[in-house]
Amino acid sequence: MARTGRRPGHSGARQAILEAAREAFCEHGYDRASIRAIAGRARVDPALVHHYFGTKQQLFVAAVQLPLQPAEVIGQLPDGDPGTVGERLIRFYLGIGDNRGDRDVVIGLLRSAATSEPAAALLRQFAAEAGIGWMAVQLDPPNARLRPTLVASQLIGLFMLRYIIKVEPLASASVEEVVAAVAPTVQRYLTAELDLQPSL
Amino acid sequence: MARTGRRPGHSGARQAILEAAREAFCEHGYDRASIRAIAGRARVDPALVHHYFGTKQQLFVAAVQLPLQPAEVIGQLPDGDPGTVGERLIRFYLGIGDNRGDRDVVIGLLRSAATSEPAAALLRQFAAEAGIGWMAVQLDPPNARLRPTLVASQLIGLFMLRYIIKVEPLASASVEEVVAAVAPTVQRYLTAELDLQPSL
Repeated sequence: MARTGRRPGHSGARQAILEAAREAFCEHGYDRASIRAIAGRARVDPALVHHYFGTKQQLFVAAVQLPLQPAEVIGQLPDGDPGTVGERLIRFYLGIGDNRGDRDVVIGLLRSAATSEPAAALLRQFAAEAGIGWMAVQLDPPNARLRPTLVASQLIGLFMLRYIIKVEPLASASVEEVVAAVAPTVQRYLTAELDLQPSL
Repeated sequence: MARTGRRPGHSGARQAILEAAREAFCEHGYDRASIRAIAGRARVDPALVHHYFGTKQQLFVAAVQLPLQPAEVIGQLPDGDPGTVGERLIRFYLGIGDNRGDRDVVIGLLRSAATSEPAAALLRQFAAEAGIGWMAVQLDPPNARLRPTLVASQLIGLFMLRYIIKVEPLASASVEEVVAAVAPTVQRYLTAELDLQPSL
């Protein structure tokens, strides 16, 4: 995540700003990543950042969404065997963790949401509108809207411990070991009887 | 978490510094909570903070450990019915979330560990020495050391979504609803066959 030293032309400036923003949000979180520092990292004028992306919030949304298209993958999940949807989801998620660019985006997202209310609000909105809302309509009631948040709680905690805080032996466990341990949890949250009150 | 305005005497200064440190770590995370700001919040000279607690790392350890004694509670978990250990652990954890002082300590710990490598290193060390290490010796092999980290991944993710990012409907779900949904996960991680390779 070091400064690359490139000096982009006009056509590359937008991409360079996005990469610099991703690096800055990953390293420092939303609050501490300033437009000025992002511009410096991308070797452009801060005014150009505002010109391309508007506010810092809008830059954050653009930076954390570009390389990841989880909605597309999640959209394909119901196509396969319903009995393996938990395993497929955890495999997709571990694939994000194994890809450095994608992993840095998620780390930036979680660091920002953990420490900044504006970033947390964006994540809540994103969760309601895109990922979790989309998943919820695929699930049978009752508890259709609670189920994806339970899945998210397991996946986000796994990401925190394995890739950010790096607690052993979870950080070094193989993909297959994590899948064997966690897939049944995700499967149950998505498809099994949860035995809650019908009010949710 | 507002500044209280108290001006402690000599005997109250140590406690005032600890409370100010907890508030600062909760609001800003480890990196951004400075000794100077903590001293200002506690209305004492920064030198007194160093006098009582030494380095910022030592102050962090003192601040995040004092009101919580999870090792004591976790120590009592094996005394009861092994079939309800998951439910008892998640109830204890949700009790932390319902108590404002305890909740702020955990929020400060997670915010700090998510954004600061020194704080993450402290949490890893704490996990290895105290909580997770202690739990691991109570569990049967194989996978005795992986099991508590799986539990931690579920509990930390739940805490992030319910109390920090506040994603609905998880943030407003009742304790009984969360227990019914999550206790079987914790129970399985602690006691069930995980079907992993024997190498861990």
